[in-house]
Amino acid sequence: MIDYYKPIYSASSLNMKSSVIRDMFRLTSDPEMISFAGGLPGAEAFPVNELQEIINKAILRNGSSVFQYGTTEGYSPLRESISQLMDNVYGLSTNPENVLVTSGSQQALYLLCKILVNPGDVVITENPTYVGALSTFRSFMADIHAVDMNEQGMDTPALEQRIGELVRSGKKPRLIYTIPSIHNPTGLTMGIIQRHMLYDLASKYDLLIVEDDPYGMIRYDGLKIPPVKKLDIEGRVVYLGSFSKTVSPGLRTGWIAGQKDIIRRCVIAKQGEDTCSGTLSQFIINDFITDGSIYSQIERVKKIYSKKRDLMKDCIDKMIPSASYTLPQGGLFLWVTLGGITDTSLLLKKSLDKKVAFVPGEAFYPGYGGQSSLRLNFSYPDCNEIEAGIKRIAVVINEANDH
Amino acid sequence: MIDYYKPIYSASSLNMKSSVIRDMFRLTSDPEMISFAGGLPGAEAFPVNELQEIINKAILRNGSSVFQYGTTEGYSPLRESISQLMDNVYGLSTNPENVLVTSGSQQALYLLCKILVNPGDVVITENPTYVGALSTFRSFMADIHAVDMNEQGMDTPALEQRIGELVRSGKKPRLIYTIPSIHNPTGLTMGIIQRHMLYDLASKYDLLIVEDDPYGMIRYDGLKIPPVKKLDIEGRVVYLGSFSKTVSPGLRTGWIAGQKDIIRRCVIAKQGEDTCSGTLSQFIINDFITDGSIYSQIERVKKIYSKKRDLMKDCIDKMIPSASYTLPQGGLFLWVTLGGITDTSLLLKKSLDKKVAFVPGEAFYPGYGGQSSLRLNFSYPDCNEIEAGIKRIAVVINEANDH
Repeated sequence: MIDYYKPIYSASSLNMKSSVIRDMFRLTSDPEMISFAGGLPGAEAFPVNELQEIINKAILRNGSSVFQYGTTEGYSPLRESISQLMDNVYGLSTNPENVLVTSGSQQALYLLCKILVNPGDVVITENPTYVGALSTFRSFMADIHAVDMNEQGMDTPALEQRIGELVRSGKKPRLIYTIPSIHNPTGLTMGIIQRHMLYDLASKYDLLIVEDDPYGMIRYDGLKIPPVKKLDIEGRVVYLGSFSKTVSPGLRTGWIAGQKDIIRRCVIAKQGEDTCSGTLSQFIINDFITDGSIYSQIERVKKIYSKKRDLMKDCIDKMIPSASYTLPQGGLFLWVTLGGITDTSLLLKKSLDKKVAFVPGEAFYPGYGGQSSLRLNFSYPDCNEIEAGIKRIAVVINEANDH
Repeated sequence: MIDYYKPIYSASSLNMKSSVIRDMFRLTSDPEMISFAGGLPGAEAFPVNELQEIINKAILRNGSSVFQYGTTEGYSPLRESISQLMDNVYGLSTNPENVLVTSGSQQALYLLCKILVNPGDVVITENPTYVGALSTFRSFMADIHAVDMNEQGMDTPALEQRIGELVRSGKKPRLIYTIPSIHNPTGLTMGIIQRHMLYDLASKYDLLIVEDDPYGMIRYDGLKIPPVKKLDIEGRVVYLGSFSKTVSPGLRTGWIAGQKDIIRRCVIAKQGEDTCSGTLSQFIINDFITDGSIYSQIERVKKIYSKKRDLMKDCIDKMIPSASYTLPQGGLFLWVTLGGITDTSLLLKKSLDKKVAFVPGEAFYPGYGGQSSLRLNFSYPDCNEIEAGIKRIAVVINEANDH
């Protein structure tokens, strides 16, 4: 069929770019391809049997209601369990009424943009930052200002300078988006002092902080640092949580914890967006928390991923001597910078020919940057693939250096 | 905690209203309340045992992949099954590549608005129309123009006149939104001639038609009428389907079938919105289609709901002589107009005191209208509740007439 009809698209649609990572999903379906590109949990990390048991129990106990519509706010017992979980893990006390269950934490960020960001409004991010957040901000035609990072996370003096400039030119930022714990892609964790400075700046300039925390619970090294949300005495921090990396991304369950008025607005936005999140998924996650499985599962995930991280690190040390990286204290990624390479997008093209994929650094920069960097995922590939894949990249790098 | 911080909301958020129906969800959690307000399937209509069996088989067969991320487009075998289903039920031939799996058909409509509608753009709807669609259009700050209906659905001469006026004033509509089969709330079905006229108008003025079809497969009386999409030789009809009314709304699975470029844009929009739809849900629905369960399930649902419709009709005939209605040939609702009542919102307030809920007609009108009408859902309440609930409404009406 020839499509004679040519749609006229919205300005928002014309401003969207397809995510490099999502597009690579298709390439990586090639069984010979070793993929360090996505952010997928490892197959061995899923608690398949426990989840199956929980599903059967939930259906027996609740019957048809696990298949029925739920409220837009989310399944009430799950909102309570999430509140309990944040308290147990972080000592973060939250009223369940201030928790909104979302279809993954991507939707959480999306809803916040929907209620907060007009076209042209300024949002501040770390430089680099999560590519999925950039997609969302672009779809709202936000004016993205990215602030460089140092070893302690977002560079707060640079942040203050940027905010000052923006405010003076009448462009007060709508929000500061940060991934303070085991940042994606750099793996860095914002220090406690830096967190206080960030919060104080937000307070001084009366700004909202959006704290995205998909990896904070998967910290396997270093000290546990409480979320920025814990400093929040004024209701200006919105915390985004996710079960995608701890339990299952396929159940599409995340959450927003924030002040009541923001939650109320997000609920109204969610009504028009997808009515409610999956009911069966919410019953499953709730039972997984209340029976305590989530705590042993988190320990299990940490053990699996710390081993994989160490293996990838060793392989890089051995095979790619020109590589430098920050050893992440948790999470799923290594952020590698290569000496002598100035175009990792080109390197990716050559790597794909050798059947290995990664995300080139520039994908994470809203402006120019990252041309010598790449992000490597170590949670999804198995140990043999980690070794073989790093070897393939090393070959491509050597070939590039030879030319 | 006092929330000192006062967020500044987007224009989009300030334009949103909470849906009457969603808000009533909370009221109807009162166990004494009989609710004719929502659009929930009846508890007895869910194929609980079949679904449980399918889940167990799916986990055994596919292991961890049912809990893993999926592609944004949707699980490939499900896209094929949906294409097959549309062919089997409607004789509608669609390439699986032209099918995008969504988190319910609410998200399908949302994504279309995201890629097509700028603030102020005109969308055309039936008058009245689905309240959830109005929420979505409002959240995109669309300029909603509603065209009155007659017994054959949207009044096409009135539609042509409206389009002509709009085009002459430089406001070419972005889309025509229609629910041609067992319309929500009126229960009307657009006739075949009217469908041709609608399509020809869209063609003449080069417009896009969005055909929302959540109820078409639950037709228990009258002739099966093929979707408007079946007339589409130019790629200008986008079809929205849903499993919420046939299988389970809690699995949040719907779809868009449309031309490739529209699907591609919706995929990019969905990446930034919720990454992908639920994986486990998609495996379940796919197996439910491929093993043929969906066809017997549709027959089962039809049988249950036609009985409930007949019961509600009989109760109204007996107890509310001032009521007129169109007997719907399927679906979940009766649309009732009351002689002598001019404010069904006020009637609702009194009804809630008597522990019975419905949706007042005006909720379905983007402008003024529906003050003598109400929508009654008969799928969710059981037979005793239908009788008792109509009785309660009759009492309230009699009291209102006495004053």
